[in-house]
Amino acid sequence: MADFLTVLTTTDTPEKAEALARGAVTARLAACAQISQPVTSVYRWQGEIETASEWQVLFKTTTARYAELEAHLREAHDYETPEIIATPVTQGSEGYLAWVVEETTIG
Amino acid sequence: MADFLTVLTTTDTPEKAEALARGAVTARLAACAQISQPVTSVYRWQGEIETASEWQVLFKTTTARYAELEAHLREAHDYETPEIIATPVTQGSEGYLAWVVEETTIG
Amino acid sequence: MADFLTVLTTTDTPEKAEALARGAVTARLAACAQISQPVTSVYRWQGEIETASEWQVLFKTTTARYAELEAHLREAHDYETPEIIATPVTQGSEGYLAWVVEETTIG
Repeated sequence: MADFLTVLTTTDTPEKAEALARGAVTARLAACAQISQPVTSVYRWQGEIETASEWQVLFKTTTARYAELEAHLREAHDYETPEIIATPVTQGSEGYLAWVVEETTIG
Repeated sequence: MADFLTVLTTTDTPEKAEALARGAVTARLAACAQISQPVTSVYRWQGEIETASEWQVLFKTTTARYAELEAHLREAHDYETPEIIATPVTQGSEGYLAWVVEETTIG
Repeated sequence: MADFLTVLTTTDTPEKAEALARGAVTARLAACAQISQPVTSVYRWQGEIETASEWQVLFKTTTARYAELEAHLREAHDYETPEIIATPVTQGSEGYLAWVVEETTIG
């Protein structure tokens, strides 16, 4: 399994997005996070296709920290079932990946 | 192979992006889709480096539904060779991934 | 290992983002690149959680070209340790992936 991941969640205000990003970086569950401009989400809700404005938050972390990051996001997020999905980083610049490890290591 | 995927395509108007997103979600080929703000695409066209405004559409689906989603997008898209690429989701919150399965299951 | 990758970097002005994109596509290190609208990056700097506006550049390339693309980006980027991370493309439309190979092949 890849040692590094990008982890994506979405929320419905930029303030919530920044709070999720700050919380995870402060707790060293992610090295950094990037908050997108508003995206248009398209999904089915009670049988109807709906659209809503959401903000994507893309975390960079290690596989070792994933379980705790997910638990943190589930706890901190105000959706009942927030989107939390991880994608493997299979290659990356050595210096950057070392920084990700350093930033997500406690102590 | 990962059971879940994000699938990315791009198109050149927000209306086309929403139509692609709605079509796939309506047909249960994807659980949801997120349409970005306009991105600047940089590419070579007839020997020259060109830029154009495009809208990214990011679908969340299962590997089982990928072939049909791709076929749908190739059919629905008005480019001759649209970008359709899939990235594995190797981890995710259980509740969310269960929702993706539920939303992409017919019947 | 996947034969195709998306490669992500970020920088702090749209002009630098376009220069990185143009440079890689001109050198056939990537078939194309997409520059996002400004994202808010959240990270720790000298013990403090900071935010900054950055632009994401998402390259599409082959695994075969990755090492040279990374070297090019490290050289061209003005950060000391730029984010350069690669995510595997495990499936994609045949025509598009053939185009990516064609565009990243020299001669």
